[in-house]
Amino acid sequence: MSEEKKPTAAVMTAWASRCLMKQGATPDVAQSMAEHLVAGDLLGFRTHGLLRLRYNLQALQRGQTKPAGEPELVQGRAAIELWDADLLSGLYVVPKAVKRAIAMARVCGTGTVVIRRTQHVAALAVYLEQAVDAGMLIQMMCSTPAQEVVAPYGAKSACFSPNPFALGVPTESAPILLDMSLSMTAAGKVRTALAENKQLPYAALITAEGDYSCDPATFVAEPASVLASLGGKELGYKGTGLNLFSELWTLALSDYGRKDAAPADADANTVWLQVVDPTAVAEQGAFERQASALVEALKNTQPIDPQQPVRVPGAGALATRARQLTHGIEYSAATWRQLEWCADFCDEPLPTAANAQ
Amino acid sequence: MSEEKKPTAAVMTAWASRCLMKQGATPDVAQSMAEHLVAGDLLGFRTHGLLRLRYNLQALQRGQTKPAGEPELVQGRAAIELWDADLLSGLYVVPKAVKRAIAMARVCGTGTVVIRRTQHVAALAVYLEQAVDAGMLIQMMCSTPAQEVVAPYGAKSACFSPNPFALGVPTESAPILLDMSLSMTAAGKVRTALAENKQLPYAALITAEGDYSCDPATFVAEPASVLASLGGKELGYKGTGLNLFSELWTLALSDYGRKDAAPADADANTVWLQVVDPTAVAEQGAFERQASALVEALKNTQPIDPQQPVRVPGAGALATRARQLTHGIEYSAATWRQLEWCADFCDEPLPTAANAQ
Repeated sequence: MSEEKKPTAAVMTAWASRCLMKQGATPDVAQSMAEHLVAGDLLGFRTHGLLRLRYNLQALQRGQTKPAGEPELVQGRAAIELWDADLLSGLYVVPKAVKRAIAMARVCGTGTVVIRRTQHVAALAVYLEQAVDAGMLIQMMCSTPAQEVVAPYGAKSACFSPNPFALGVPTESAPILLDMSLSMTAAGKVRTALAENKQLPYAALITAEGDYSCDPATFVAEPASVLASLGGKELGYKGTGLNLFSELWTLALSDYGRKDAAPADADANTVWLQVVDPTAVAEQGAFERQASALVEALKNTQPIDPQQPVRVPGAGALATRARQLTHGIEYSAATWRQLEWCADFCDEPLPTAANAQ
Repeated sequence: MSEEKKPTAAVMTAWASRCLMKQGATPDVAQSMAEHLVAGDLLGFRTHGLLRLRYNLQALQRGQTKPAGEPELVQGRAAIELWDADLLSGLYVVPKAVKRAIAMARVCGTGTVVIRRTQHVAALAVYLEQAVDAGMLIQMMCSTPAQEVVAPYGAKSACFSPNPFALGVPTESAPILLDMSLSMTAAGKVRTALAENKQLPYAALITAEGDYSCDPATFVAEPASVLASLGGKELGYKGTGLNLFSELWTLALSDYGRKDAAPADADANTVWLQVVDPTAVAEQGAFERQASALVEALKNTQPIDPQQPVRVPGAGALATRARQLTHGIEYSAATWRQLEWCADFCDEPLPTAANAQ
């Protein structure tokens, strides 16, 4: 795909939505799934963008992801609700939960939704701005009850899933957006290193012998290595504490832990999301002023490398999005091949040079 | 002090309370301050126990800590309140805030209190069980608007305070209790290493030249080194994100940032604490069952060192407390000398062997 063929977000969203409908998704479900996958591409979270359309199409076809319906309210009070998504896509359910949390926060000051059994949440980053645009703070965590791939501190076997942690807040200019894992690396990065025959840049794996390792080959060995908790060899107890934070506030609070996860739920996620309305405790605009002051303080520190100013979380992602909104989404050849597979699978031709702008 | 002179918690609390009253604290304020300092000793948080009585007595004497009064409700809604502590001790104000958060959580499912301008919060660990004993989850963060000693990723100068992060939850047996800093080490540990003429066990400092260092002497050099964010040289952007989480949810939400802190507030803290009532979303006992399952999974991982089973956060602290409740509090000679200073300062003789049991 040459420079001038980069498709627009609108064209790709419409195409992906048609593909998802071909696999049975209702128009609303398909539109939300497509939008939030493309939103991942726009922010540069390429491993959680349309690269995962194939997975989602197949999950719909197999009945693993539910194509229609609404999440069920299990139980709640004025400021917190537990939802069961009944295997609907997180790409459809999470935006509804953020909307509900915002409504609760307007009344109570904070609003929390815990969602269990939701398929493919993708990048938490794509849900943050819905709250930020409403003037709110948002904090999200996500775990996977059927996965164990991250080791606690001092162990050479796993008990945690890869657990992302995200937050978003408004400032007087661009929002602060953060989306990171609580392990030293993500399984996807290990698989990428393996495919490219490269070592990891630091020892993020723990082998079955208990050694910290940079070698991605250990991840597919038998017995396999596992991901280390954030903090690593010296401070991994901190990452272990943060992984427990995630899993207690998702799995335990939703009363749906590893013993409850059915084989059909193998990839389903559990999400904690909480929204805070800063005008509940201070005048309009006060939070944004203070958040901007923190951003300024961050920027005013002295960089170790004068060529590398200290970065504000989210600034890179927002720049990537602005560029792609202007010039089109930059799909790699490998991703485009996955999209061609989807086009064939659904008999929905990919946007061409003629219609991609 | 020989083995048989180890004083009981009750005796030390009563003595410390008398000292605090001599410096003007009302009986209620003095009792709460003494209890929560001794609670730090009991859990093994020695740097935040009665070792800090001297500091608190002097702060009361100087009028830096207010000896009497109540925190003021600034603004709030059903599930969140902002309090201004008006320089009352955190050791007095935080337990009141936890109580209020529990009451909000019973109604709304969650309850949050943000407290600004509260003196010496000490160890967050000592406030967790109040919520846990009520069957609730608690998460706490604390920052200090007048301090900048932790560097963001990529910088060799500081913009964050040392920011502790704590959580507590009930299980079917002992609670999970976590209290850790979001930097690679704490300033207190650096000063201890300096006093003992030892190197730090890992490179937790960033020198003015931008090098990661184990040398505590750099911390008092001119220009001084700063503390690195959790994650260090490779993953410090994650610790930076967590420090931003802390400061946005404390300083920015309370509308009291570094530009607002007056010289009189130099050590005052800002606290975020949030309580969740798990029975808002699931049946009684469900959360404890699930939390116990997570603890079991943690314990069932294979330890790297067979002699070092994987630890559950809080287990060590609770064992330390149980031992000290039985045999008396184990004060070091250095701490006891500080307590002797306090005894002289307040003309309140320290408990002796005769009355220490």
